[in-house]
Amino acid sequence: MFSVTIRDHLMIAHSLQGEVFGPAQRLHGATYVVDATFRRATLDADGIVVDIGRAAEVLRAVLGELGYRNLDDEVEFAGMNTTTEALARVVSDRLADRARAGALGDGAGELDGLVVTLHESHVAWASYERPL
Amino acid sequence: MFSVTIRDHLMIAHSLQGEVFGPAQRLHGATYVVDATFRRATLDADGIVVDIGRAAEVLRAVLGELGYRNLDDEVEFAGMNTTTEALARVVSDRLADRARAGALGDGAGELDGLVVTLHESHVAWASYERPL
Amino acid sequence: MFSVTIRDHLMIAHSLQGEVFGPAQRLHGATYVVDATFRRATLDADGIVVDIGRAAEVLRAVLGELGYRNLDDEVEFAGMNTTTEALARVVSDRLADRARAGALGDGAGELDGLVVTLHESHVAWASYERPL
Amino acid sequence: MFSVTIRDHLMIAHSLQGEVFGPAQRLHGATYVVDATFRRATLDADGIVVDIGRAAEVLRAVLGELGYRNLDDEVEFAGMNTTTEALARVVSDRLADRARAGALGDGAGELDGLVVTLHESHVAWASYERPL
Amino acid sequence: MFSVTIRDHLMIAHSLQGEVFGPAQRLHGATYVVDATFRRATLDADGIVVDIGRAAEVLRAVLGELGYRNLDDEVEFAGMNTTTEALARVVSDRLADRARAGALGDGAGELDGLVVTLHESHVAWASYERPL
Amino acid sequence: MFSVTIRDHLMIAHSLQGEVFGPAQRLHGATYVVDATFRRATLDADGIVVDIGRAAEVLRAVLGELGYRNLDDEVEFAGMNTTTEALARVVSDRLADRARAGALGDGAGELDGLVVTLHESHVAWASYERPL
Repeated sequence: MFSVTIRDHLMIAHSLQGEVFGPAQRLHGATYVVDATFRRATLDADGIVVDIGRAAEVLRAVLGELGYRNLDDEVEFAGMNTTTEALARVVSDRLADRARAGALGDGAGELDGLVVTLHESHVAWASYERPL
Repeated sequence: MFSVTIRDHLMIAHSLQGEVFGPAQRLHGATYVVDATFRRATLDADGIVVDIGRAAEVLRAVLGELGYRNLDDEVEFAGMNTTTEALARVVSDRLADRARAGALGDGAGELDGLVVTLHESHVAWASYERPL
Repeated sequence: MFSVTIRDHLMIAHSLQGEVFGPAQRLHGATYVVDATFRRATLDADGIVVDIGRAAEVLRAVLGELGYRNLDDEVEFAGMNTTTEALARVVSDRLADRARAGALGDGAGELDGLVVTLHESHVAWASYERPL
Repeated sequence: MFSVTIRDHLMIAHSLQGEVFGPAQRLHGATYVVDATFRRATLDADGIVVDIGRAAEVLRAVLGELGYRNLDDEVEFAGMNTTTEALARVVSDRLADRARAGALGDGAGELDGLVVTLHESHVAWASYERPL
Repeated sequence: MFSVTIRDHLMIAHSLQGEVFGPAQRLHGATYVVDATFRRATLDADGIVVDIGRAAEVLRAVLGELGYRNLDDEVEFAGMNTTTEALARVVSDRLADRARAGALGDGAGELDGLVVTLHESHVAWASYERPL
Repeated sequence: MFSVTIRDHLMIAHSLQGEVFGPAQRLHGATYVVDATFRRATLDADGIVVDIGRAAEVLRAVLGELGYRNLDDEVEFAGMNTTTEALARVVSDRLADRARAGALGDGAGELDGLVVTLHESHVAWASYERPL
């Protein structure tokens, strides 16, 4: 099994609802350093898993919809805690939607899966892994 | 599949028995930078894999039983080489024991597995992965 | 010249005023991974630059006054952009104040200077260096 | 499941054929920071996955066949794009060949699999995973 | 003293002339992860050392002149070894030229100095520091 | 000013005497990831600060005298706490001695200074800087 990973980042404000979050119940924020991994059993005719330039653009577009925002004000996240693990899924699902819509080119049909990891600090990170 | 990882570290002295270890047969030591990963298929009602504050406390407690010690003097490791891979298992099994005993809260019953990685330097690390 | 550095982090929300900031004029946030460096020409009788345990507590206390907050709401930052470089100075000056007030012990009188670096992502960081 | 990873690097020149590669169609080069992971279900009598000294030598030997070369001139890569993902497979397969030939010692027969990751920069890397 | 650092990278082919370089006398290549640090005694009216967006564009432009090339074929490097330390100076001097030409805005006149670090692997890097 | 840095590591056991060290008064150990930086105002005729191959050998030799040992048993450290900052000086002074003795070649006479940094974990490190 092959994989290719690209790294980018986003910066957001949010608060988290629930006693378990302690001081993070207050409005605060985070930088997420985001690693998006694309998996595929065989390489295409060019010898690649995915066009890395296109993949970087798609990742940047997905992060651009989220970044430099207060996620508490975004309708799509109403009633949901935007935890690191939940956002890993959001990014992963949006990458999958764009891949299926053709944004990664024809070869993306051969992709087996995606993993998205969001690093919230040097001591904590979360991932979501899904088939494609 | 979701996962959350937290990082901490411990510092120990030990020696390793067997020709394969060369100069590491002498009493020496190591800093292990420890990554503990908790896996779970779905998020709980708060939108998390595990209470990260509690998980960090439990990891610190497990590492506190090992750190700032000469492992050659610890009865529990008599007759056993405390290699990086063996210690990854020790930390993993102790985290699992505490999870089952309730230290991570009720939601820990939903955890699917654990991975513990011990980095012994910038060029070598070892992991142990187990179900929970 | 000797130095000792310790790392911690903080997570905040804020917005930045001025066209130069582009989308960062909107309310967003950041994780800052913070490196605090203490400099000293000679070691003390224990062979150290500073009591690293105390230094870590003082750094945590200073970051605790800032973290898990929306800096736009903090009176002390009214009329000031809380850029990464400006916050590096804030953290540095507050560490210096506490050092002078004795929080690092008597030996802190021998410290020559401080450097504080705030990493806002894997591709950008800022520092402030000052005498002590 | 246990694993042990060792890190080394190689530096090569090459060009990539195909419009998808944009400016990388020109002769250029790369440093690949290489992580080789060895997996095994149980530890041997010494408490290890593999003799890490031998594994490091074998990895260095495999990388030595590739490094400080223009891969465009190497007969073995004629007609093939030496992308990061393709080279991850080359390194992985050569490590597997040497393991089967006894270079890692007798215990290598118990190894379950290999993962090789090549980091081409701080923002992109590729892996190949295979059984052994 | 304040500083701001931004990170980018470039990938080149080259060879190095002189016995001291051993196998690196052959045509090979490197990824350089590049850190450009801008120093300034005081912040501007916006609270910044430099417009980080502009600085990133200028760094990318400078690296774009070098990247995805065989430096042995570039007239400007004829008769010169393009070592990591020599390239750190090239990048630094070109950033300084562009700063003086206004590419970083008016505030760049207040910059005191530049440091450019090129990381050629996880175990070796070189820097060049100059006034501005 | 130019500089070149190389990274290596060592693993030792030791204990630290003095209440300030808390649990580190017990016999324990550490991995030190060591960065040795060589500074020089101008490059030599080959375009380098120092022969990096030789510098790596000299660093390895210096670390080899310390590594895989219990520093409490070494006569040279009797009556001295082998703190991270103190060891940074030891490594630095020994590199300087070898440089003056010719181990880095003739060009080493042009070196202006050395910085040695020992990383004891992902959250703490110490440096010693000296002229040469």
